[in-house]
Amino acid sequence: MLSINKDRLISRINELGSIGKDAQGGRTRLAASDTEKEGRDLVVSWMREANLKVVVDRIGNIFGIWETEKNKDQAPLMIGSHIDTVIQAGQYDGCYGVISGIELIQTLQEAGLSTRRPLVVGAFTNEEGVRYSPDMVGSLVYAGGMDIDEALAAVGTDGTILGEELKRIGYEGTAEPGFIKPYAFIELHIEQGPIMDAEGVSIGTVENLQGISWQKITVEGVANHAGTTPTNMRIDAGLAAAKVNVFMRKRCDNSGGKTVCTIGSIVFEPNAINVIPSKAVFTVDMRNPIEEKLQEEEKALANYLAELQKTDHVKISTERLARFEPVQFDEKICQLVEAKAEARGLSHRRMTSGAGQDAQMIARICPTAMIFVPSVNGISHNPAEFTKEDDILAGANVFLDVVTELVEAH
Amino acid sequence: MLSINKDRLISRINELGSIGKDAQGGRTRLAASDTEKEGRDLVVSWMREANLKVVVDRIGNIFGIWETEKNKDQAPLMIGSHIDTVIQAGQYDGCYGVISGIELIQTLQEAGLSTRRPLVVGAFTNEEGVRYSPDMVGSLVYAGGMDIDEALAAVGTDGTILGEELKRIGYEGTAEPGFIKPYAFIELHIEQGPIMDAEGVSIGTVENLQGISWQKITVEGVANHAGTTPTNMRIDAGLAAAKVNVFMRKRCDNSGGKTVCTIGSIVFEPNAINVIPSKAVFTVDMRNPIEEKLQEEEKALANYLAELQKTDHVKISTERLARFEPVQFDEKICQLVEAKAEARGLSHRRMTSGAGQDAQMIARICPTAMIFVPSVNGISHNPAEFTKEDDILAGANVFLDVVTELVEAH
Repeated sequence: MLSINKDRLISRINELGSIGKDAQGGRTRLAASDTEKEGRDLVVSWMREANLKVVVDRIGNIFGIWETEKNKDQAPLMIGSHIDTVIQAGQYDGCYGVISGIELIQTLQEAGLSTRRPLVVGAFTNEEGVRYSPDMVGSLVYAGGMDIDEALAAVGTDGTILGEELKRIGYEGTAEPGFIKPYAFIELHIEQGPIMDAEGVSIGTVENLQGISWQKITVEGVANHAGTTPTNMRIDAGLAAAKVNVFMRKRCDNSGGKTVCTIGSIVFEPNAINVIPSKAVFTVDMRNPIEEKLQEEEKALANYLAELQKTDHVKISTERLARFEPVQFDEKICQLVEAKAEARGLSHRRMTSGAGQDAQMIARICPTAMIFVPSVNGISHNPAEFTKEDDILAGANVFLDVVTELVEAH
Repeated sequence: MLSINKDRLISRINELGSIGKDAQGGRTRLAASDTEKEGRDLVVSWMREANLKVVVDRIGNIFGIWETEKNKDQAPLMIGSHIDTVIQAGQYDGCYGVISGIELIQTLQEAGLSTRRPLVVGAFTNEEGVRYSPDMVGSLVYAGGMDIDEALAAVGTDGTILGEELKRIGYEGTAEPGFIKPYAFIELHIEQGPIMDAEGVSIGTVENLQGISWQKITVEGVANHAGTTPTNMRIDAGLAAAKVNVFMRKRCDNSGGKTVCTIGSIVFEPNAINVIPSKAVFTVDMRNPIEEKLQEEEKALANYLAELQKTDHVKISTERLARFEPVQFDEKICQLVEAKAEARGLSHRRMTSGAGQDAQMIARICPTAMIFVPSVNGISHNPAEFTKEDDILAGANVFLDVVTELVEAH
């Protein structure tokens, strides 16, 4: 049985993870920044070491292509993820999938094997979306979901233009996004959640990805004196916001664990100890893996807000900030992942991706699936993000086995 | 029947109200500021016009004393309020009581009457507490509730020292606070709440003043990914804060209108749309006119917080920011107010003061009561603060009648 070179895999994760690292142990490689350029250069050097043909497309996605005269007419299998990070990130998110992809190709090469299909490992631009909006823009544009020029014109939080920054760091390529039509796409990734670690499961077969509904809700009440205004004459925007939070948690509890909802940010006005809030602005992040269910939750929230306008006399307006439909991954690839995990004697379970992923975009153009490995305590987007070496290796080996079969390595 | 000079009263309210006025129609006369000095100078000029002896004490309280050879051995009746304001205030809060006090003395003088007791009208320092803490410090120090040197050393929100600012504006007097021992104290004030306006009542007989309990509550949860963290594995500080808000509103609803509670300010950390709040810091302003009931509410809140620590796995700490026991005003004076309102054919009702007042401090040293007039729509601490001229006059006339009887004018 083939196996990934564990030491080289771990050492490469550490090496890429050291780029952009600060004194607190986190690293920051925002898309198309100087530190991300360093990371890109390192990944490209590894691709070259593996004799891959490196092609950069117009949105800055990097592809390392392994093809031969014999297989170049076949649709390639694409694998990959991203290497940009959030601010003070861990070293696994995204990087694990890209580095494992290169390792996997080198493992096949070192074993003297050929493949019936070309293999392409991709590193997609601006997956995190911290510097530029939208997130996952590289894979989104690649899949034809957004106009390339619009994407390149995105203005960053620091006032820069994505297209100009890609040119500045030398990663504005010439290939048209979508230039390779993949046979299938597989992304290996850390879970970024606590489920697999809590259950002691090694391999997550990601069968779907939650739909996401983001709303900003503005509740208007009437500012009044906290001492002189009787309860029955109050129009308390903050109380109405609190009721929404409690209401949505009840919906989540009653959804059998399927709906998750977060009120992560809130601002009161005037935000004074002795004044009834005249305004509460808060966000609702709502997710469910089934589109109909997500719509049900959105409708339930809308009905509740309408009810609050009557019972609490507040005025409520809502603004949609983001909306992504759930993604169903390819069932055949999922079954293949399960079979390969079984064959290696690894525990596994079906998973829903709670986070957004490049795979959800590429799923628009070919059969797609993901493989998860556990995140210790579910911590991610944090310097403390960690996956045990055994799990790192197990995930990469299942990834290797699945890819080996799909490309018919021989 | 004697009557206050309505035109002069209204014109003086407008004149004082024009000092510190901005383009938005609000006025700002923070304690011991340059604009408040202007206000003080104007009030002193009116006291002198009424032939009152003006004495300033060490904490900057201004007293206009009307006494004669005949009555100077009797304990004086004290009346008054304050002329400092919040930021962008209305023109009635406090000023109405001070100006009506001067008017009342002039009315008696102009009618050629003498009184069996001296009459003293006071304007107390820093009632609002916007610039210096604590609020109501002038009356508190006057009543012996706080050390004068500690009060003078208070550092303002702008870094100034109260004592130095009083000296700078020429209102650091030499009289010891408490130098006059009043026979009784009466304060005329706008309601600053909506009850009387809603009920169409002219005169409020203030029988008590709510106790106030201010707490800052810190809830600690665990920041986690809004998509990947199952509901049952969340420790959501923001949700726990929301539950407290809903819980306290239920307590208020069940208190028969006696308890009021406000969660006026809240801050989440990290306050991001897709991160479960790791921290929620919020304030609780709780009031009830009965000390035992206020303690019951405090205990109910503490028990609920303890319960939340178990059910929601959050950590909660509380900090007491302020605590004042309720004040019971003098029943005899209350009955006198009612009788005088009746005699003028004015509608009246018993009231609880929801706001803090100088009268609550002076109540420590003599029989005390307050008279309220309606605030249109209950608006106060706002440029839109308004009381109709008829109500202004009615309140001042009842005030006149009550004082006339207590000083035995003849």
